[in-house]
Amino acid sequence: MSSTAPYELIYWPGIPGRGEFIRLALEEAGAEYTDTAHQEGGVQQVLSLIDRKFQGDPSGPPPFAPPVLKHGDLRISQTPNILLYLGPRLGLTPSGDGAYQVNSLALTALDGLSNEPHDTHHPIAVELYYEDQVEESKRRAESYRTNRLPKFLSYFERVLAPQVAQGRPWLYGDTLTYADLVFYQCIDGLKFAFPRAVSRLERTGQYPNVFKLYETVKDRPRIKAYLESDRRQKYSQGIYRHYPELDDAE
Amino acid sequence: MSSTAPYELIYWPGIPGRGEFIRLALEEAGAEYTDTAHQEGGVQQVLSLIDRKFQGDPSGPPPFAPPVLKHGDLRISQTPNILLYLGPRLGLTPSGDGAYQVNSLALTALDGLSNEPHDTHHPIAVELYYEDQVEESKRRAESYRTNRLPKFLSYFERVLAPQVAQGRPWLYGDTLTYADLVFYQCIDGLKFAFPRAVSRLERTGQYPNVFKLYETVKDRPRIKAYLESDRRQKYSQGIYRHYPELDDAE
Repeated sequence: MSSTAPYELIYWPGIPGRGEFIRLALEEAGAEYTDTAHQEGGVQQVLSLIDRKFQGDPSGPPPFAPPVLKHGDLRISQTPNILLYLGPRLGLTPSGDGAYQVNSLALTALDGLSNEPHDTHHPIAVELYYEDQVEESKRRAESYRTNRLPKFLSYFERVLAPQVAQGRPWLYGDTLTYADLVFYQCIDGLKFAFPRAVSRLERTGQYPNVFKLYETVKDRPRIKAYLESDRRQKYSQGIYRHYPELDDAE
Repeated sequence: MSSTAPYELIYWPGIPGRGEFIRLALEEAGAEYTDTAHQEGGVQQVLSLIDRKFQGDPSGPPPFAPPVLKHGDLRISQTPNILLYLGPRLGLTPSGDGAYQVNSLALTALDGLSNEPHDTHHPIAVELYYEDQVEESKRRAESYRTNRLPKFLSYFERVLAPQVAQGRPWLYGDTLTYADLVFYQCIDGLKFAFPRAVSRLERTGQYPNVFKLYETVKDRPRIKAYLESDRRQKYSQGIYRHYPELDDAE
């Protein structure tokens, strides 16, 4: 495997989606990469990899879904798996067993702050439109805003408290890891999807370190430059969607 | 970290649950381990780790939920993360970049064949009873049995086809990995939860390698002995639940 090859991100154009977790890692590290979201024929590359006839090749088994990362002769999929691969290469994973703690924190953020928000607008079936499951979405979103989201924010506040007490704003260890980037993107997506609920939770003052970490990551020079660039795509019909009826009542 | 310390699995008693994915890896390897599911005061150990006041300690951050693995001075959580840690130590992960392919396959099986089945009986809110979301569960289960489950089985059949053509029954490489064990447990749980739907899908003959792999893992000497032992707990009110109204109609 050629470790000096540029990284190739293969993901749908038009939404940040799950590809964004990979982009933020590559951007923070200043890595050289290509992105099918900005390439002509990019969609075709995604489609050919998830085609029902593609059985994989020497680069790897077929991916179930994007994001997919190609690096030299290797092709891998699954968001947390790609981050696991990139982390040590991009200086975003601590050495030793801390790598498992970072992986665990990223998995928990992806579960509770990305997959669960997705299910608030698709609680019944991913193959149906939102419009076909609005009433169920309202029930699920209420549960999410009232129970699950505060539970996950409390959890991360608990993870951060002893860190901050030692002068570290990060979820783990003494430098930024990819878990911090995942966490940032989740909170950013939640602010888009549920602006009233997130604002209410922030105003309780119960999660000061959670919202501080969000700002700290947002202000990283390379992240800031990325967010201001046209490489950063707008939220729309992806994981994080803004339907006012799913947010707190005004 | 003492790599000769016995493994300590910390999980709820009474159901196979997500702990089962860890148990199968330990059992297949013939590893020495303890399991709070069979220890007096086991529940208390789980509760103390997920207590809202526990902020972690030098062994690691607080876990969001069990399963948790302790090994010497290290404590980690998240099912796929624990398997990632155990795999190389138990001889269940190939060396080199194949580790990322195995991780990806395990993540995909856990997503589509474990997390999604769980949501068929809790589509609206995990904190509510099934009885409070029966109608929504029926809709979601129908979508799962009709669309998602066949899609995931097709995917794994596609992964297996080139493997089997080379005389390998496994999802990746030329020996059993933890991805095969995860896959076995998922299919076993699905057979419990949706006996009619799984039987229908098996009878289509479209997934021969999927069901062959299930039998191959089940017949591994240590797995067979484990399944016949009283260490194997019965399915009940866990991830995989059998509600006849959520299965195919008779």
